[in-house]
Parts: sequence; C-alpha cells; structure tokens
Amino acid sequence: MDQQRSAPRITAEEFQELAWQGVPFVRQLGWRLERFAAGDVAVRLPYSELLLRPGGTIWGPALMALADVALYGLVLSMIGRVEGAVTTNLSVHFLHRPAPADVLAEGRILRIGRRLAVGEVIMHTLDHPDPVCHVTRTYAIPPAQGSRGGLAGNGL
Amino acid sequence: MDQQRSAPRITAEEFQELAWQGVPFVRQLGWRLERFAAGDVAVRLPYSELLLRPGGTIWGPALMALADVALYGLVLSMIGRVEGAVTTNLSVHFLHRPAPADVLAEGRILRIGRRLAVGEVIMHTLDHPDPVCHVTRTYAIPPAQGSRGGLAGNGL
Amino acid sequence: MDQQRSAPRITAEEFQELAWQGVPFVRQLGWRLERFAAGDVAVRLPYSELLLRPGGTIWGPALMALADVALYGLVLSMIGRVEGAVTTNLSVHFLHRPAPADVLAEGRILRIGRRLAVGEVIMHTLDHPDPVCHVTRTYAIPPAQGSRGGLAGNGL
Amino acid sequence: MDQQRSAPRITAEEFQELAWQGVPFVRQLGWRLERFAAGDVAVRLPYSELLLRPGGTIWGPALMALADVALYGLVLSMIGRVEGAVTTNLSVHFLHRPAPADVLAEGRILRIGRRLAVGEVIMHTLDHPDPVCHVTRTYAIPPAQGSRGGLAGNGL
Repeated sequence: MDQQRSAPRITAEEFQELAWQGVPFVRQLGWRLERFAAGDVAVRLPYSELLLRPGGTIWGPALMALADVALYGLVLSMIGRVEGAVTTNLSVHFLHRPAPADVLAEGRILRIGRRLAVGEVIMHTLDHPDPVCHVTRTYAIPPAQGSRGGLAGNGL
Repeated sequence: MDQQRSAPRITAEEFQELAWQGVPFVRQLGWRLERFAAGDVAVRLPYSELLLRPGGTIWGPALMALADVALYGLVLSMIGRVEGAVTTNLSVHFLHRPAPADVLAEGRILRIGRRLAVGEVIMHTLDHPDPVCHVTRTYAIPPAQGSRGGLAGNGL
Repeated sequence: MDQQRSAPRITAEEFQELAWQGVPFVRQLGWRLERFAAGDVAVRLPYSELLLRPGGTIWGPALMALADVALYGLVLSMIGRVEGAVTTNLSVHFLHRPAPADVLAEGRILRIGRRLAVGEVIMHTLDHPDPVCHVTRTYAIPPAQGSRGGLAGNGL
Repeated sequence: MDQQRSAPRITAEEFQELAWQGVPFVRQLGWRLERFAAGDVAVRLPYSELLLRPGGTIWGPALMALADVALYGLVLSMIGRVEGAVTTNLSVHFLHRPAPADVLAEGRILRIGRRLAVGEVIMHTLDHPDPVCHVTRTYAIPPAQGSRGGLAGNGL
C-alpha cells in the first residue's frame, strides 16, 4: 500500500499537541512518539511505578489509554486534522501479562474509507517479544469536515 | 436463571472497598453502586465538569472505567472474592453521544463457568433512554483460588 | 424508545423473501420468523440432525447464520428495504454449548443512525434458558439509497 | 518467538483430514493449505461462481468459514490434535469489498497459553493487497486432553 509510505497528513508535533490538549490525563502517562509516518505509528509508554498493579503487572487502563493514543495518531496520520472522528467500536484482547518495563504500541491501518477507518495496535514490553495486548478500533469520519469546534466523540 | 436472584457472594461494601483500593484513579470518578445482587449490578457515575469533553459530551475513557467497575462487580457478585480473575477480552460499541448528565451502567451475566465468565454492560444517561455504550467482557477465572496476594491482571 | 413499538418498515413476508433469495444456503436451514416488529425480531431454527456436530452439539456456523438472519431482519425492520447496507463489524461470544433442540434468536436494536446501525442478538435453545450465543453487529448504511441492483456486502 | 519457527504439532495432511471430516460443508468450498508451520498458516479459497453475491462480491459467510479453517489450523499447529478446543469469542472486521478472485487467509498466533489460545487472521484477494477481512478468535483449551470422542464445540 504505497500511500502508507508517504508523509503523514499531520506532523508528529501537531498530533502530540492535539492529543495533549485533548486529554490531559493521558498526557500524565508520559507517552512519546517513536515513529509517526502515514499509517505507521509507534508510541512508547515509559515505565513508572504509578503504572504498577498489585501482582507486579501494568495497569490495564493505562494500556488502553496507550492504545487510544496510538490509534488516534494512526488515523490522523492518514486523514489529517479532521474534527469529529469518533470511535464506534473497540475490540481488545489481553494476551500476556506485561512485565514492569516500557511498553511499545505499534499501529497499522487496516482500512481508510471516506466514512470509516479501522486500525490495529499491538503492544509488547521492551524486555520481551510476546504481545501483551491487541486492539482493533473503528472510527466514523464525519462526512464534511466542518467547524465543529474541537475534538469530539468518545475516544481520545 | 434462579441463581441470579440469590444473594451476591460478596457484599456491596466489600466490593466497593476492593474496587477503591485496587484502582484509586477510578475512585476519583465518584461512582456509586445503585444495585448489587448476584448477577445484577448497576453503577452510577455522577456527572461532573471533569468528565466533559470539548463538544459537550462525556469523556470516553470515563465510560470505560465505569464499565470496568460494573463488570468487575458483576463477576464478583457471582464468584465471590476470587483473586486473580483477569480480563481476556473486551468488546465496546459506542452508540449515542452521552449528554452531560449522570450515567447509569447496568450489567448482567451471560455466562459463569468454572474457567470463564462473560458479562454485558449497557449504559444510558439519566435524561434519555437511548443506550450510549455497550460492553461485553470475558474474564478467565483461576483454576484454584490460592493466595496470590491481591488483585492481579489487566482489568480493574 | 417508542419507535421500536411501531410497525416494521418492511413486512415479515418481504423480509423472508429477500433473505431467501439472497442466501439460498441459509434458507436450507429452515429458519422461520417468530416475531417481526420494528426493532424486535425473533427467528427460530428448527432442530435437525444435519445441524449436529460430533459431541451432540449444534454446528457453530449454523448459529452464526441464524444470527445473520435475525440481525439483518432487525435492521431492515427499522430502515426498510435499503439496498447496500453492509456489515462492518461482528462480535460473537459462545456462551453455553447448545443442546440438540430448536434455537431461538432474539434481536434488539442498540442504535439506528443515518450512517450506522448496531444490533444485538442473543440465542437460547428452547429446552433451557441459558444463552448459547451473543452477537453484536454493526452495519454501514449507504448515504443515498440508490439503485445498486440488489443485496450487496459481506453479511447476509 | 522461536517456537513459531518449529515444526507443527500436527501435519498438514492430518489437519486437512480432520477439518474435512469435521465440517463437510466447508470442504465444498475447495480450500487448500498454502503454508502450514507452527503458528504460521495460510489457506487459499479458490474463486468460484458459487461464492459470488449480487453486486459482484464474495459471500461473507464463505470468508468466515475460511477464517475458521485458518484459525483452527493455526491452533492445532501449536497444540497438536487436542480434542475439545472450543471457540469462546470471535471478532470480525470487514474491511474492503472482495473482488471476484482467490482469497488468501494468513493467520498468526497471538497467544498460546495452557487454557486459552488467541489467533488472528487477515485476508486479501490475490489481485489486490488491501485486506478484506480481519478476524481474531479465542479458543478455550480443555484442561486434560481426554477421550471425548471427536471434535466438539461451536467453532469448526
């Protein structure tokens, strides 16, 4: 898919700013972009004790917030700064218990249509190749990209 | 299903304490139990401006945290205080944009087996009957309920 | 939701005809409509030995075909004979092993929007109240209901 | 994941025989294995007019039957001829409308545990790289692999 090799339709800096403003809580997690190309995005969640659950594993909602960021970036990398794209559907499989280490979330686009986008994210901790979490997510893209005044919708 | 009419295998108070300890962040949301019977749990998320997203709707991850609480309560209401039940799979549909109002999450058990439990949650805002979010979630129940030292796993 | 009490936007007979023509294979299963109101559809799959799997349970794909019929009927009961509605997403949980008996699939609409419809089906065998299968399904509804020449898309 | 490079725990011929016996209907589709290694399975569905839907696209349930075969093979390639592995959960995204051409389904294992296995399949038609369908599927593996007398469960 040649279009996936091209430049993203929003810069990494613009995306980061948008995501930080949109959801301050998620910013606190300290995530950072590792790759940001059109349809190919990787986001890293640095390990911190705040993420730790009893049992020595990483807090599940933190992984889901990480998936949010990665999938949102993935979609904007393909369609640009479209206001009002909303999540319609989200499917998560928890696969292996994450060790206390940095987590890398890597996303790819499965479909970009005029009305729906579907992306997939898979995560692993940096100390082990086994995937800890797999997420697919569908976004509805608004038909005309008007001036709705900011990020809307349920997802990030 | 007669067993669903019987008393829960953990009290509402015990569950609340467990959930508050387990995930302090989610406690901040101020949720409270409206019903807590075996296999029939309702949790209310009081509206606050902190939950508001640009566009006048409620922050998606807050809805998911609410679903977490409801489904976790649902499972414990059936199996008691089992340590180490982990989420394996989660499926979410966002249905209608929630208005700025209290949200009620109502859960029911679809399956309780020895090894797997499946629950369903549906949410609506108190000002409107349309569902805003539908969640199904699968838990793996540990084979022997040993002394693993606390809540483990990815989910709440 | 008052609209769900009103008459369906396609008759039971029209729907049956459409579904039979569209997928002859599924017709062979011998399903029949038990209820067909707007947003409230029940379909019955009569038991036959052809449906039996080794182990004495019902063939999984037959249950999924039954879910197909019920969800397709559910959507058409709300939007009428719209050509080109396609399934975008499907989520299935197998809950209890079905006994060799008639299966009843009951569906309800979770969302009807201009562009997306979401429905839910739950099934049980007539000899037992435990649910055997739970399905959610999302349809994309074409923006203008033009003359595309017949049932399209992946689902039924 | 080194174990995925090793020999499958069931041969391609044994798997094919098992799948043909288990579900004669699916055999009629004429699928064949293209690759069968441990954790890496590809299955090809030859195009035929029988698969065609009005609108010139391939019948959705045929794609799902193809996913069934690929995921079942994937799991058996890792655990061998275990009787009684049943599908607990299935998540499908239809991505692009398939053209009338052979379809290739490629699967990979996301998780093999003692009790649960999760696999992923992605399909494309041989004339185009865009994915037409993405499926994740969870299997419950029976605790002891006794003599239950044949393939059981809902899935293939």
